[in-house]
Amino acid sequence: MTAQLFAEDDLAVFVRSAYVALGLPNHDAELVADTLVQADLWGHQSHGVMRTFWYAARLQSGAMSPNTVPEIIVDGGAIAMVDGHDGIGQVIASQAMREAIKRAKKHGVGAVAVRNSGHFGTAMYFTRMACREGCIGFMATNASPAMAPWGGRKKLVGTNPWSIAAPAGRYAPMMLDIANTAVARGKLYLARQRCEQIPEGWAIDKDGNPTTDPIAGIAGNILPFAKHKGYAIAMMMDVLSGVLSGSHFGADVVGPYVAEGRSGVGHLAIALNVEAFRPLSDFCSDMERLVDSIKSAPPVPGANEILYPGELEARADEHHRHVGIAVPRDTIDELNTGAEALGIDTLSSLAR
Amino acid sequence: MTAQLFAEDDLAVFVRSAYVALGLPNHDAELVADTLVQADLWGHQSHGVMRTFWYAARLQSGAMSPNTVPEIIVDGGAIAMVDGHDGIGQVIASQAMREAIKRAKKHGVGAVAVRNSGHFGTAMYFTRMACREGCIGFMATNASPAMAPWGGRKKLVGTNPWSIAAPAGRYAPMMLDIANTAVARGKLYLARQRCEQIPEGWAIDKDGNPTTDPIAGIAGNILPFAKHKGYAIAMMMDVLSGVLSGSHFGADVVGPYVAEGRSGVGHLAIALNVEAFRPLSDFCSDMERLVDSIKSAPPVPGANEILYPGELEARADEHHRHVGIAVPRDTIDELNTGAEALGIDTLSSLAR
Repeated sequence: MTAQLFAEDDLAVFVRSAYVALGLPNHDAELVADTLVQADLWGHQSHGVMRTFWYAARLQSGAMSPNTVPEIIVDGGAIAMVDGHDGIGQVIASQAMREAIKRAKKHGVGAVAVRNSGHFGTAMYFTRMACREGCIGFMATNASPAMAPWGGRKKLVGTNPWSIAAPAGRYAPMMLDIANTAVARGKLYLARQRCEQIPEGWAIDKDGNPTTDPIAGIAGNILPFAKHKGYAIAMMMDVLSGVLSGSHFGADVVGPYVAEGRSGVGHLAIALNVEAFRPLSDFCSDMERLVDSIKSAPPVPGANEILYPGELEARADEHHRHVGIAVPRDTIDELNTGAEALGIDTLSSLAR
Repeated sequence: MTAQLFAEDDLAVFVRSAYVALGLPNHDAELVADTLVQADLWGHQSHGVMRTFWYAARLQSGAMSPNTVPEIIVDGGAIAMVDGHDGIGQVIASQAMREAIKRAKKHGVGAVAVRNSGHFGTAMYFTRMACREGCIGFMATNASPAMAPWGGRKKLVGTNPWSIAAPAGRYAPMMLDIANTAVARGKLYLARQRCEQIPEGWAIDKDGNPTTDPIAGIAGNILPFAKHKGYAIAMMMDVLSGVLSGSHFGADVVGPYVAEGRSGVGHLAIALNVEAFRPLSDFCSDMERLVDSIKSAPPVPGANEILYPGELEARADEHHRHVGIAVPRDTIDELNTGAEALGIDTLSSLAR
């Protein structure tokens, strides 16, 4: 498969114009474009611009509204509740984190629950916002069912991703951003295509038996990571995101992969203002010491060095801003087709 | 190995008198006894009364103080910072969670960072406190180094356990309580004793190569669960517990298994007051619906039913309160020996 290099700004222009054509106000289109391009910059291409038109069918069906008007329905000092009214997840999550940061600046901690939102892309896009304001950020979301509860064989539990990010002084922020499944479903499709076995612990077949056959796994269920531990984390993230906010939860959450049905995704954004606890500069020098200590470990055979969480993304970001983002040929074709359907300039016309 | 049944109250009396003899005030001795006996009631015997005398050497060396006087050194409305002054972890963590709940009742959310504490036993003992007050509780702690950073082969990262617990209406609270290692070190010793191989993903040998030999694993390093995911979670829990609080972090944390050296363990306790977000009764009926939905899944072969996180512990608690707690013979012998050294009644003298 070939690929073509694009500058991040050109990709952002393309995605923004697509969302403007889909009815989003300019500043919201710009925000969604930035979240998708940032995922590509971090090297998470599966969450990048290839997703541009994934939301289009939901916007066109009316399941999702292009005009996002998040409403603060509870304003309780250090906490708030936001109703996203079925708008764009990225726009709603972004406002929720801004509210959490604002409250953290006043009360030391801010927690904002969100109901009636949608799929928001990459969780650490929002926790990183907190780092820029000297806060530790936490963001959780629920998601449409992706796996069975531990010990069961019916798809009822979402991937329910979550992120924590903290400023790290002269280093890029330390960032965690994970889903609670053992593996992304796409890796089973890839193994099937390559006629490869999958490792134990990835999936069960339709009868609930462990399997290393990707075809049986696709017909069955993906497993949580680390067995009951991943299952329990996924459940608690749903409690924080869906139940606390009074949004959909469990099997009732609708994902971005179907055109119809209100999403009902819920989130929880928390910001901790470091300065309220101790001087930010002290915190940051300790973060640097922690990073330095981790990186001092001798590597295992095959590894060159130790990375702290988020370091891979920070390096990829720098690299991609320098050399450009390689977009695979089939993604370019899909984006061109989508652009033509909307009557906007194709991605190819923007290639340098 | 034989075992003997004890009523939970008798175990609590024994442990309390041991801690009183070790110099703890009566109410603190009672709290520590309750945390250890509760771990046994939940079926987590590894964290139960068998640990009674683990702290004794640290108390006798002066590394840990029997008189715990936690001091609130930052009082910032929704947040606080507690200095534990090297007292008893359980007593300090308990006060921190009480402070977090108090602040959540006023501000919707409360976050309390703790420095200079110690090993506190079972994290969900403290998050369950929040559930009883209609709050969702979060508790994280750092711990002495137990594994290498991902890609490294030097023990620098703690197990750094954490817990989230939420009220669940007519059901016992939904509770998560996990360490971030793939396995407890004790399981490698057990495998060595039984001349068994260990599964891949548990450990690396001293050169950093994956191993299924328990002896090589003991000489090497335990791995995090779910590879880089468990590593990243462990790091972020250290940031929340150790760095935010200005306590020890990384390899500088001293565990309960050595007699000397200030522990420097840090914690973070967060409480979210459900009622500040939505009526607690609505939250609880949604939690019941979530539990019912999960339990409706057909089980995999070999499983009888689906359990929600914390259900196993709730059942064990009920069972053990009914039939008693089976304490293994070698634990009884150790506890008797410890009691004789302190000049208190032996555990055997309390057996019914």
